Amino acid sequence: MKAEIISVGTELLLGHTVNTDAAYVARELSALGIDLLFSCTVGDNPARLREALQTAFARSDLVITTGGLGPTGDDLTKETVAQAAGVELVRDPASAARIEEYFRGRECGPSQYKQADLPRGCTVLQNDAGTAPGCVFESRQGVLVLMLPGPPSELLPMLHHYAAPFLAARTGGVIASRMVRVFGIGEGSAAERLADLLESSNPTAATYAKENEMFIRVTAKAETPAAASALCEPMVAEICRRLDEAVYIVNEDGTSDSCLEQVVVQALAARGMTLATAESCTGGLLAKRITDVPGSSEVFHMGAVTYANEVKTRLLGVPAELFDTVGAVSPEVARAMAEGVRQAAGAGLGIGITGIAGPGGGSAEKPVGLVYVALSDGKAVWVRRMNPAGRIRSRAALRDRAASVALDMARRRLGGLTQPEAEAFALV
Amino acid sequence: MKAEIISVGTELLLGHTVNTDAAYVARELSALGIDLLFSCTVGDNPARLREALQTAFARSDLVITTGGLGPTGDDLTKETVAQAAGVELVRDPASAARIEEYFRGRECGPSQYKQADLPRGCTVLQNDAGTAPGCVFESRQGVLVLMLPGPPSELLPMLHHYAAPFLAARTGGVIASRMVRVFGIGEGSAAERLADLLESSNPTAATYAKENEMFIRVTAKAETPAAASALCEPMVAEICRRLDEAVYIVNEDGTSDSCLEQVVVQALAARGMTLATAESCTGGLLAKRITDVPGSSEVFHMGAVTYANEVKTRLLGVPAELFDTVGAVSPEVARAMAEGVRQAAGAGLGIGITGIAGPGGGSAEKPVGLVYVALSDGKAVWVRRMNPAGRIRSRAALRDRAASVALDMARRRLGGLTQPEAEAFALV
Repeated sequence: MKAEIISVGTELLLGHTVNTDAAYVARELSALGIDLLFSCTVGDNPARLREALQTAFARSDLVITTGGLGPTGDDLTKETVAQAAGVELVRDPASAARIEEYFRGRECGPSQYKQADLPRGCTVLQNDAGTAPGCVFESRQGVLVLMLPGPPSELLPMLHHYAAPFLAARTGGVIASRMVRVFGIGEGSAAERLADLLESSNPTAATYAKENEMFIRVTAKAETPAAASALCEPMVAEICRRLDEAVYIVNEDGTSDSCLEQVVVQALAARGMTLATAESCTGGLLAKRITDVPGSSEVFHMGAVTYANEVKTRLLGVPAELFDTVGAVSPEVARAMAEGVRQAAGAGLGIGITGIAGPGGGSAEKPVGLVYVALSDGKAVWVRRMNPAGRIRSRAALRDRAASVALDMARRRLGGLTQPEAEAFALV
Repeated sequence: MKAEIISVGTELLLGHTVNTDAAYVARELSALGIDLLFSCTVGDNPARLREALQTAFARSDLVITTGGLGPTGDDLTKETVAQAAGVELVRDPASAARIEEYFRGRECGPSQYKQADLPRGCTVLQNDAGTAPGCVFESRQGVLVLMLPGPPSELLPMLHHYAAPFLAARTGGVIASRMVRVFGIGEGSAAERLADLLESSNPTAATYAKENEMFIRVTAKAETPAAASALCEPMVAEICRRLDEAVYIVNEDGTSDSCLEQVVVQALAARGMTLATAESCTGGLLAKRITDVPGSSEVFHMGAVTYANEVKTRLLGVPAELFDTVGAVSPEVARAMAEGVRQAAGAGLGIGITGIAGPGGGSAEKPVGLVYVALSDGKAVWVRRMNPAGRIRSRAALRDRAASVALDMARRRLGGLTQPEAEAFALV
């Protein structure tokens, strides 16, 4: 099935709004095994929408519009689509009743009821977050047409709860996917180790990389969800075997965001342990990422952002003489920060980060990008030196990478794994 | 001039990447007074790109492609565009030299040099953030064609520094723009106060709003940069007069990100003052945003993330009895945190934030979204209560809003402005 998206909205062509809708729909189609070949955007302009629809009806089996279903004069998608598809709009009583209910006690003009006018014989897709229903129907040209509302808060639930199941049934099969999330191994290196698996066709496996993150998505198609899942499992197991400790989680679906911090918070909670952080160059970013996770307050009681050396000494007990002998950016200070904050917080684990995030402050001996990350569990402390010659250049990327390295060290300690590239010291 | 964007990239059609490039280009075209009528996305597929190009060449005066300029086998934009436009690709020696320089000391295969192959006679657009140059040229059909790289970190500087000035010259004039950045006033309210100004045609003024931020962009077109700037100035002055203290900065161009934190860091540095932060529900986000600003180490020596009450007492001196009497989420605790961290750090200003970021932890009396933000200067402390009935719903948005409110309070104190919606208390 060849699909095409037509996004409708002048705000998209003025750049006021980024077209996230198209990405959401694209992701859903991909998971359903439907090929999306074109995605087009037009303004709230019937003539240009008509032109886009004519092109789409001639080359695609499924045309999905987003936007233009609302009550205002600009909202012309349904009228234009109905005309191009050769169908008539008729008022859907159930949708009209929902609109009336929505406005109970408030004024509800005739333009609101316009939203209940839908192509005759269509399948109505309920809008759980607004007033404009969506719909799906077959055009006179034999093309399946799906109309979705523009606001993402309305589009997303309609897409997941009503449109995707409808399409899955139509494509005669269901999709299951898994995300294998990995830290501490590059995309190239992962692709090398998985080369033969990446050639597979059902299930498929593909690597994805962002600046500080990598994952492998495994997708299988079968007649039932259970059968599709069963196809994924051996592939996931083999990937986990080959990438071993670098795998930090396998997600059941492809929609969740990166979650090294979630894995750490869950591992801490499972063990009844707490973590404390002392940050210099990351400036609170590590604490922020940990506390992004709902419920983190149970396992994270204290974080310190200690830019000034004097504060490192007073708050964390970092020996003041270290700043003169080895300097603030040193493995010794990172270790003292990690163990110092652990003790100050009475926590099970302590993390210390010190480095030069740039753009200023670097020297030949200690260049921008040099960061030491230390993890202490009260018995031992591990220190990792981040390579200043690496390819990460911006202040933001460097800080994010340092926070990720710290989280990965905590994950490895909590999981009883090795600490690659880290030097270990026993604490007395 | 009628323009059309063609975004090239299979990752866009799989939904792995949201098409921010198209929005950036759209915004720039809008500021230049160029009408964008269509925006299309195709995968890394020469046949479908050719189809899109043929359609675009037939109906548009300016066609802008994004993506597919890199060294890999998937990067087919230039070859396909050149063929459709009836021009030949030839190696640009200056671009080849830049690529060689970029890879100095590392391996640089022939596929890297492919990036220097550009349409004969084109204007080369230098890539300041990567290896693939862009270009602009006229097709055999008489259409102006602009090719830009896909990664936003490469596209944005090329767009602003090279492509936009080229287009401005072509459209018979140059553009100057100013961004008036505003905090603490809604888009609707700003639009009301500026209603007559928003009708103006040269300069134009337009309001933009994101979740926690708002700005007004003023754009003027004239024959010289100085004349365009001169057209902007009275409009900017009038906007500043009407929005008054809510304006926190006027940017000279439209490219910088929100910078409440930059304004605060600069104001602190200008006054030789320092700031310290104590965060509960924002969990380090405020410290992170402050330390996002290069050079912030001069004015920010200490931040504390104190989730546990016991840590609030020990580190910040918050009286333990407050937790039993008024509770951790209270104006009293916010005040004690602000003044406590100010004293602990020996700083001029102290900020305390305590609240319920959700999704759990709320109650009828203290619902999710209730946040107290306090600012102390050692003589007085101001406390602002954030409205839990507001429209901000997600944990992330709520935390970001609280951090912004704190920064705005610091900005106002540093600028000798009022503290709207805040209650003031004298410190003994």
